[in-house]
Amino acid sequence: MTNFEFYNPVKIIFGQGKIADISTEIPKDAKILITYGGGSIKRNGVYNQVISALKGYHITEFGGIEPNPKYENLMKAVEIVKEKNIDFLLAVGGGSVIDGTKFIAAAAPFNGDPWDIIVNPKDAPITKAIPLASVLTLSATGSEMNSGAVISRKSTNEKYSFGSPLLFPKFSVLDPTVTYSLPVNQVANGVVDAFVHVIEQYLTYPVKAYVQDRWAEGIMQTLIEIGPQTLANPMNYDIRANLMWSSTMALNGIISAGVPTDWATHTIGHELTAFFGLDHAVTLAIILPSLLRETKSEKKQKLVQYGLRVWGIKVGNEDRKIEEAIDKTEKFFQSMGLKTKLSDYGITKEQVLPIIERFKQRKWKLGEMGTITPERVETILLNAM
Amino acid sequence: MTNFEFYNPVKIIFGQGKIADISTEIPKDAKILITYGGGSIKRNGVYNQVISALKGYHITEFGGIEPNPKYENLMKAVEIVKEKNIDFLLAVGGGSVIDGTKFIAAAAPFNGDPWDIIVNPKDAPITKAIPLASVLTLSATGSEMNSGAVISRKSTNEKYSFGSPLLFPKFSVLDPTVTYSLPVNQVANGVVDAFVHVIEQYLTYPVKAYVQDRWAEGIMQTLIEIGPQTLANPMNYDIRANLMWSSTMALNGIISAGVPTDWATHTIGHELTAFFGLDHAVTLAIILPSLLRETKSEKKQKLVQYGLRVWGIKVGNEDRKIEEAIDKTEKFFQSMGLKTKLSDYGITKEQVLPIIERFKQRKWKLGEMGTITPERVETILLNAM
Repeated sequence: MTNFEFYNPVKIIFGQGKIADISTEIPKDAKILITYGGGSIKRNGVYNQVISALKGYHITEFGGIEPNPKYENLMKAVEIVKEKNIDFLLAVGGGSVIDGTKFIAAAAPFNGDPWDIIVNPKDAPITKAIPLASVLTLSATGSEMNSGAVISRKSTNEKYSFGSPLLFPKFSVLDPTVTYSLPVNQVANGVVDAFVHVIEQYLTYPVKAYVQDRWAEGIMQTLIEIGPQTLANPMNYDIRANLMWSSTMALNGIISAGVPTDWATHTIGHELTAFFGLDHAVTLAIILPSLLRETKSEKKQKLVQYGLRVWGIKVGNEDRKIEEAIDKTEKFFQSMGLKTKLSDYGITKEQVLPIIERFKQRKWKLGEMGTITPERVETILLNAM
Repeated sequence: MTNFEFYNPVKIIFGQGKIADISTEIPKDAKILITYGGGSIKRNGVYNQVISALKGYHITEFGGIEPNPKYENLMKAVEIVKEKNIDFLLAVGGGSVIDGTKFIAAAAPFNGDPWDIIVNPKDAPITKAIPLASVLTLSATGSEMNSGAVISRKSTNEKYSFGSPLLFPKFSVLDPTVTYSLPVNQVANGVVDAFVHVIEQYLTYPVKAYVQDRWAEGIMQTLIEIGPQTLANPMNYDIRANLMWSSTMALNGIISAGVPTDWATHTIGHELTAFFGLDHAVTLAIILPSLLRETKSEKKQKLVQYGLRVWGIKVGNEDRKIEEAIDKTEKFFQSMGLKTKLSDYGITKEQVLPIIERFKQRKWKLGEMGTITPERVETILLNAM
């Protein structure tokens, strides 16, 4: 186990009907900006629950935060925060809304160009942030219980992550019933997103972190068990509750404490979203199998353990077990309705070349050992055609 | 899954050499009371590491906090805190020292009889506490990452738990190397203590909390794997690190989120410590097997799951599987060097009768379903002779 620090002060309020409790968590004199996405919360009753829970508060609204939230749009909210002296942000939505709200929280009190918070964090550290909280409406990213976010810039086709301990939500309400009305593809995306979050913190090299391994495996076993059921039984409380808790636990820092992490699949995937607008989870489902095949020698020991403990693969030599584990992973994504090749989405080799070029210019070395060179990114992308 | 709230703001600083970091976590002008136990920290170098890390601070010391920390003794520290205007408590020790320090933290600013905090929490709620932190020296109770404590009163043979969100340590340093020099029986006790903590939050009735189940099982699998090795290889960093993280994760609230909990073994065990001075873990090793045999009809489904997933028990009818799971649990405690019968410690039936009498007077109904009546406590105790 490697040395680590773990700190996560987010208060989780979990269960049916819990949106009603939020007023006990927000100062009575707070000037609140409620942020949300495309307006589904107005159709499924969540908006009304929030407004009714916040009776008596000074409320402003900012809707229209898009999937893969855009810097250009979020800066409009930053202006509203400054104009109206907003001092509490309540994100009502999924990971994109919560991520976008984290950016607003950091950007509003920042002196200088807020894009620097993201691309130049050493010179532009976050030293202040407006307190934020969330009412989660989609199980996927884990943003409701961590201090990170991913923001895109439309004008430059860029998508990057950033974070600060100041950006932990004060609280997050997790009511599984609010996810009943989600479109099937969003639920499926959430399952895959959470699964790949776990993989990125687990499928590296072993460091004898036994509990972290077991816990990562436990989340993946759960997602495999409930994944198909989330699609078949959208109104089943237990299934939705387990998906919600799995995705929150998948990225709150607890399974990555003391272990190496990869994140190459996310880094490459972000480019596919930035260039082609593919759903985040779709990019992960495309990149991960190809990446695992390319890096199986580095990840050999953990791939065998993964195959055995998560998929029950006991027979065959090491290579065969690893192939089977990766195949089963890819088939799991497909069973959730996601396609796992770039060509499935009409993307050609020619279209991918600018991404490869960008990695070559950046000279980034990705992966838990820094062994994924731009040349190997090229292989991973071309093998995912 | 049942509705729940989860909140745990303790910052964990984990790894070899990390005691040196504590000064970055404590305000420079703090008046610190360092609390500790019997003085082993002065022999194993931990005391020197702490003092050297706190160069320049205003420090007072309070040593001599005993195992099963006593109200009478702790009140002396409360006087020191008041006299010297102490505003930060640093517990350097195991669960008893940290628990005792939590009591000091709550009792010093309390107006009234501090025993009421423990026995009469509804009328004497904790509304203020002195900030505390810990340097952990023994893996066992999990007190380093929770807000609860157990305090004994010598004059009345009483031992009770209490807690408040104000009693979360601000930080806890977990350096596995400081446990190298522990006596074998304390290490063994720690393994059993952590194991029973998990059992009390897991072996109840199923509520379809899949991740919580997997995580509880993961800690138990780890403790079974490393338990004997902790005794055989006291200077093995990885083994001690995994024991430390297992015991911390066992009682920080994460595996009990959304599930029923039992705690009857602890409640009965506390009486054995209060009356006979038995080590806490020893009382758990005595009571748990007898309690599981008595309550196996209530706990049937989870006992079968426990047998299968934790012990690999696949053969036999349900009753046979359950018997085998309980037998294996008892043998595991014995393999750690703990005896599992009251008579092993020279305790007679006659001596146990006052405890049974006390339960009958209190009319407590214990267990996750409130079905463990005083009469069944009698059966559990007599079957543990």
